[in-house]
Amino acid sequence: MNSRNVVLCVAVSLDGYIEGPNGEYDWCFTDQDYGMTAFLDRIDSILIGRKSYELMMNPNEAASEYSFPEFKKYVFSTTLTSVGEGAELVCGDVKTQIDLLKNQPGKDFWLFGGADLTRSFIEEGLIDELILAVHPILLGAGKPLFSQLNERIKFNLLDSKTYSTGLVSLTYQLA
Amino acid sequence: MNSRNVVLCVAVSLDGYIEGPNGEYDWCFTDQDYGMTAFLDRIDSILIGRKSYELMMNPNEAASEYSFPEFKKYVFSTTLTSVGEGAELVCGDVKTQIDLLKNQPGKDFWLFGGADLTRSFIEEGLIDELILAVHPILLGAGKPLFSQLNERIKFNLLDSKTYSTGLVSLTYQLA
Repeated sequence: MNSRNVVLCVAVSLDGYIEGPNGEYDWCFTDQDYGMTAFLDRIDSILIGRKSYELMMNPNEAASEYSFPEFKKYVFSTTLTSVGEGAELVCGDVKTQIDLLKNQPGKDFWLFGGADLTRSFIEEGLIDELILAVHPILLGAGKPLFSQLNERIKFNLLDSKTYSTGLVSLTYQLA
Repeated sequence: MNSRNVVLCVAVSLDGYIEGPNGEYDWCFTDQDYGMTAFLDRIDSILIGRKSYELMMNPNEAASEYSFPEFKKYVFSTTLTSVGEGAELVCGDVKTQIDLLKNQPGKDFWLFGGADLTRSFIEEGLIDELILAVHPILLGAGKPLFSQLNERIKFNLLDSKTYSTGLVSLTYQLA
């Protein structure tokens, strides 16, 4: 058993969107900590897809507000040939690469997204823990967290926390 | 304010499906009551779409196992001209019809489905309460609970219960 976990930690609407149709995340509550400080303390690196990385690193994009310079980025890409400071390019089979990374000493990994990378991880059974900050809203449209899968995947509920704003934080472990 | 509430109470997977790709609901936990007895005690009638009603009334269909003969059915249809015993046909504008029904004395309504009727109710803001029995599984495919909407809809969290199996029951009220 590996000691470093891959944790998908994400804000999601009741209808399963992680962003509005134009990339909006103004619906995400920011009035409280919602366990983020404790979560960020568990991790030391971010697993991120190429498109999300490019948005995060582009100062003209809203996503660049949350670029988490304190964490090492592992950028999964089949097209990039280099990445910036604090980042490392990861090519090749996702499962093989994650097994290698898990064998290096360190804290947990935050699977940051985007949708394509998340899907690969889910399909390969590589998500050890799922933390969903379920917001009490139907967005109606946007970027869905989950894609179609060929198989069912079961989880165990580890924790559930309810906040005064109606946000429910659900923590699951791969069963 | 009407005293009779329309309650959408449904089992849902983590990825938002209410049925598997072939109508499967074998993933729904049946080992415990999960609050259903208390819920069924609150209602006296079922709001149901035409297709779901026909499945429920067809003895060759698995859905007929749960036909809830003790509850009156209000069948929403634009094509049927008659319905069976214990049922009443509802035609015309959904909002108008629900307002009329709410003015009749009685207990709460269970919005039973299917997807098209549920969508109409959500779009018209006619769901007073939402009870989601969130199961700790990704189905990967199937019939989604929520459809696309033109507007965001906010809810207030009323209650959250966690069960030993990992099922989380979330109760929301239209905000």
